[in-house]
Amino acid sequence: MSNFFFKNRGPFKVSEVINFLNLDNSNFDKNHEIKDIKDLLSSSENDITFFHSKKYKDFANKTKASFCITSEVLKSELPKSCNAIVVDNVLVCTSKITSLFYPDSINDDFDKTVTEINETEFKDKVSYGKNVLIGKNTSIGINCKIGHNTIIEKNVVIGDNCSIGSNTVIKNTLIKNNVKILDNCVIGKHRFGFFPNKNKNLRYPHIGIVLIEDNCEIGCGATIDRGSMSNTIIGKNTYLDNQIHIAHNVKIGENSIIAGQVGIAGSSIIGRNVKIGGQAGISGHLKIGDDVEIAGGSGVIRDIPNNSKVMGYPAKNIREFLRENK
Amino acid sequence: MSNFFFKNRGPFKVSEVINFLNLDNSNFDKNHEIKDIKDLLSSSENDITFFHSKKYKDFANKTKASFCITSEVLKSELPKSCNAIVVDNVLVCTSKITSLFYPDSINDDFDKTVTEINETEFKDKVSYGKNVLIGKNTSIGINCKIGHNTIIEKNVVIGDNCSIGSNTVIKNTLIKNNVKILDNCVIGKHRFGFFPNKNKNLRYPHIGIVLIEDNCEIGCGATIDRGSMSNTIIGKNTYLDNQIHIAHNVKIGENSIIAGQVGIAGSSIIGRNVKIGGQAGISGHLKIGDDVEIAGGSGVIRDIPNNSKVMGYPAKNIREFLRENK
Amino acid sequence: MSNFFFKNRGPFKVSEVINFLNLDNSNFDKNHEIKDIKDLLSSSENDITFFHSKKYKDFANKTKASFCITSEVLKSELPKSCNAIVVDNVLVCTSKITSLFYPDSINDDFDKTVTEINETEFKDKVSYGKNVLIGKNTSIGINCKIGHNTIIEKNVVIGDNCSIGSNTVIKNTLIKNNVKILDNCVIGKHRFGFFPNKNKNLRYPHIGIVLIEDNCEIGCGATIDRGSMSNTIIGKNTYLDNQIHIAHNVKIGENSIIAGQVGIAGSSIIGRNVKIGGQAGISGHLKIGDDVEIAGGSGVIRDIPNNSKVMGYPAKNIREFLRENK
Repeated sequence: MSNFFFKNRGPFKVSEVINFLNLDNSNFDKNHEIKDIKDLLSSSENDITFFHSKKYKDFANKTKASFCITSEVLKSELPKSCNAIVVDNVLVCTSKITSLFYPDSINDDFDKTVTEINETEFKDKVSYGKNVLIGKNTSIGINCKIGHNTIIEKNVVIGDNCSIGSNTVIKNTLIKNNVKILDNCVIGKHRFGFFPNKNKNLRYPHIGIVLIEDNCEIGCGATIDRGSMSNTIIGKNTYLDNQIHIAHNVKIGENSIIAGQVGIAGSSIIGRNVKIGGQAGISGHLKIGDDVEIAGGSGVIRDIPNNSKVMGYPAKNIREFLRENK
Repeated sequence: MSNFFFKNRGPFKVSEVINFLNLDNSNFDKNHEIKDIKDLLSSSENDITFFHSKKYKDFANKTKASFCITSEVLKSELPKSCNAIVVDNVLVCTSKITSLFYPDSINDDFDKTVTEINETEFKDKVSYGKNVLIGKNTSIGINCKIGHNTIIEKNVVIGDNCSIGSNTVIKNTLIKNNVKILDNCVIGKHRFGFFPNKNKNLRYPHIGIVLIEDNCEIGCGATIDRGSMSNTIIGKNTYLDNQIHIAHNVKIGENSIIAGQVGIAGSSIIGRNVKIGGQAGISGHLKIGDDVEIAGGSGVIRDIPNNSKVMGYPAKNIREFLRENK
Repeated sequence: MSNFFFKNRGPFKVSEVINFLNLDNSNFDKNHEIKDIKDLLSSSENDITFFHSKKYKDFANKTKASFCITSEVLKSELPKSCNAIVVDNVLVCTSKITSLFYPDSINDDFDKTVTEINETEFKDKVSYGKNVLIGKNTSIGINCKIGHNTIIEKNVVIGDNCSIGSNTVIKNTLIKNNVKILDNCVIGKHRFGFFPNKNKNLRYPHIGIVLIEDNCEIGCGATIDRGSMSNTIIGKNTYLDNQIHIAHNVKIGENSIIAGQVGIAGSSIIGRNVKIGGQAGISGHLKIGDDVEIAGGSGVIRDIPNNSKVMGYPAKNIREFLRENK
C-alpha cells in the first residue's frame, strides 16, 4: 500500500471505525487510535489490515497490524497482537474503511483544478503544445515535452528528458527519467475495481499509483490503471506497443517487450526480459517468470515459470502446442 | 426502430418510393402515403418495412406494415394487408429508402454546429473542464460533470448525476442517471454498417441511438456504436472496463460486468448478470442468456443458454474445456 | 523505401559511413559518394542497401546498390558490382546508417511547429472544428472536413472530399480522395520498431509513410504506424472498423473489410477482397492472399493462399476447424 499521493485522513479511533461498519464495538478499546490501513505484510503496530482468503495465511500469521478485518473462519490465523474485527464481507468492509482513511481515492471524475500550463511554473521549463493543462501537486523535470491537448491531472511526478504525446490524460502517476508516453493514453485512473452489487455496484478505493521506471516507452492508446492496495509498475526499459491495457496492481519487470493490443488483468506480476506477442491476454493474480516468451494471441491462465516459451489458450509449452496444432 | 433523434422527412407517396428505387410502379396505388420505415415487428399501417431472410418468417407473417421491401422468394410469407415491393437486393434497397426518410442518419462527419459550453444554457448548471463543446438538441440534468476537450455533439440527452471524462465524443445518445463515462470514448457513431461494393462501399443509414441506463460505467477508450434499425442498449448498473467495443444494435442486460478489451459484434443480445472476461469476443446476431459467465479470451460463436459458464474458441462448457485443455 | 516526406541528408562519402560504424575502411574507395539508403530491390547505383537474412537471397543477387551492409556468411550472395560492408549486427548498423541519412525519422515527439488552422492557407478552404492544428509541409484538397481538436502534424497530404474526425493525430501520411478517418485515431507514428538492448533499447528509423488510398474508411481509435523501410498501405475502398491496430510496413489490398479490434503485425501483406472478423490477429511478415476470409478471433501465424477461409488459432481451413471443434 502506498500513499505518496493520497492524503491519509486518519488516525481514527477504534470506536469510529467500528461504528462506521455498524458493528458491535463492545470488545474493543474504543479510544485506541488506528493510524493507517495497509495490507497484511506492510502494516505496522496501530494499523488496520484485512485478511479475506486462506491463500494469505502465511502473511496473516506474521502481520504486525493491531487490527484486522476478517471472517469468523479465518480469524484464528492472526497473531495475538492483532485484534480481529469479524465481518460478513471482508472486502466490502475493507473498501469502506479505506474510503474513511482515503476519501479522495474513490472519485475519478475529471480534475477541475487544472490550469493552463502557461500560467504555471512550468511555462519556461517545459516544451509544450497547445491547450496543455496541469493539475495540482505536480512536478516536471528538465528537458521534457508535453503534446497538444494533454492533461496532466493532479498528483503526477515526471522526471527528466520525458516526452508525453498529445491527447493523453495522466493522474496519480510517478514517471522516472527518459520515458516516452505516446498519444491518446489514459494513465492512472482507478478503473475496474468494484464490488458487484445489484442495481448499484460499490466502488472500492484505489490508493496506489502508476509507477513508470526509467527509459520506458508507452504506445498510443494505452490504458494503465493505478493500483488499488499497491502500485501498478512498469519496469525500467520496458516497451509497450499500441492499444495495450494494464490493469490495477500489475507489475512488469525491466527490459520487457509487449506488443500491440495485449491485456494484463489485475494484480498479475510479470518478470524481467519477458516478451509478449500481440493480442495476448494474461489473467489476473498470475506470476509470469523472467525471460518468458508468450506468443501473440495466447491466453495465459496459469503461472509461467522462468525461461518458458508458451503459446495457445490456455497457454502451454510452445513446442507442444505447435506439435498438437499443425 | 427508434427516431427519438432523427427527423423523419416522410411521408412519401408510393410513387416516390418506387421511383427512388428505379422500379416499375404499375402495380401500386401511386398516391398512397407511406409515413415511416420500421422493422417487421414495430411497423404499423402505412409504414414500409423490409424482409430479407427466412429467419424472420414469423415476424413477416404478422407485420402490420402496408408495404414491404422483399424478394421474389420471400414475398409469399407476407400477410395480404402488406404489399410486397420485390427487389434484387433487399438490404441495399432498404438502405436507400431509409436514407430517403432519414437523410441525416448517414452522415457521421464531425458536428460543426457545436458551441463552447460557456456560451450555452449549461454554463451555470454543469461542472465542466476546458474546451468543452455542446451540440444542438442536447439536454443535461443536474449535478453533472463534463471533462476537458469533451465534445457532446448533437442529439444527446444526459440525465442527473452523470460524470463524463475528458477527450470523449458523444452523439445520438440517451444517457440516464448516475452514469459514468470515462476518458477517450467515442459513443453514438454509426460506424461499420455498409454494403460491400467494389470500388466504393455503400453506407446504410443508422437511425437508432445508444441508450445507457442508470448507474452504468463505461471505461476509457470505449467505442459504442449507435443502432442501425434499433437501439444499442447498455442495461442498468452494467460496468464496462477499458478499451471495449460494442457494435450497432447490441443490447446488454442489467448488472452485467464486462472486462477490458472485450468486443461484441453487431446485433447480439446479452442477458442480465452476465460476466465477460477480458478480451473475449462475441460474434454478431447471437443471444447470450442471463447469468452467463464467459471466460476471458473466449470466442463465442453460438447462442449461450441461461446460467452457462463457457470458455474457449469456440466457447463451450467451461468444465469440458478445461478437462480437454490441461 | 520511400522518402516523400523525409529529407535525405546525403550524399555521404564512403569514409564517413564507414567511420560512423567504427569499421576499418581500408578496403573501400573513401571518396566514393553514397546517395541514399534503400532496400535490396529498390536501390540503384551509388546507393547503400542491407542484407540480413538468407530469405532475401534472390533479391540480393540482383541488387543494383553499390554498397551493402551484410554479414560474413551472406556477403558471397551479392553481385560483383556491390561492395559488402561486413558487420556483426546488420540491422543495428542499418539503423545507424539510416539515421545518418534521415535523422528526422527517429524522433516521434509531438510536432511543436503546428499552427491553428485559422492562421493557415486552409482557413477558407477546409470545413474545420475548434482547436484544429496544422503542421508544416501539409496540403489539403477541396471539400474536406477536419473535426475538433484534431492535429495534422507535419508531412501530411490529404486529397479531395476527405472527412477527418475529432481528437485524431496524423503525421507522415498521404491520404487520397474520399477517405474518412474517424475520431481518436493516431496515424503515421513510427512506434514499435527498435532493437532490444539491455537498460536502453535502440530505436531504428522509420522513413516510410502511411498511404491511404481512395474511398477508405478508418474507424475510431485506430492506430496505423508508418513504415520503417517501406510504406504502410491501406488499399482502395478498404474499410477498417473501430480499435484496429496496423503495424509498420503492413500492406492491405483493395476492397477489404476488417472488423473491430483486429491487429496486424509488422510487414504482413494482405490481399484484395479480404474479410477479417473482429479481434483476429495476424502475425508479422506473412502473406495473406486475395479473397481470403479470416473468422473473427482467429490467430494467423502462417501464409494463407488465395480464396481460403480460415478460423482458429493457429488459423486453419474453416470447415476442418469447425468439424474438430463442435
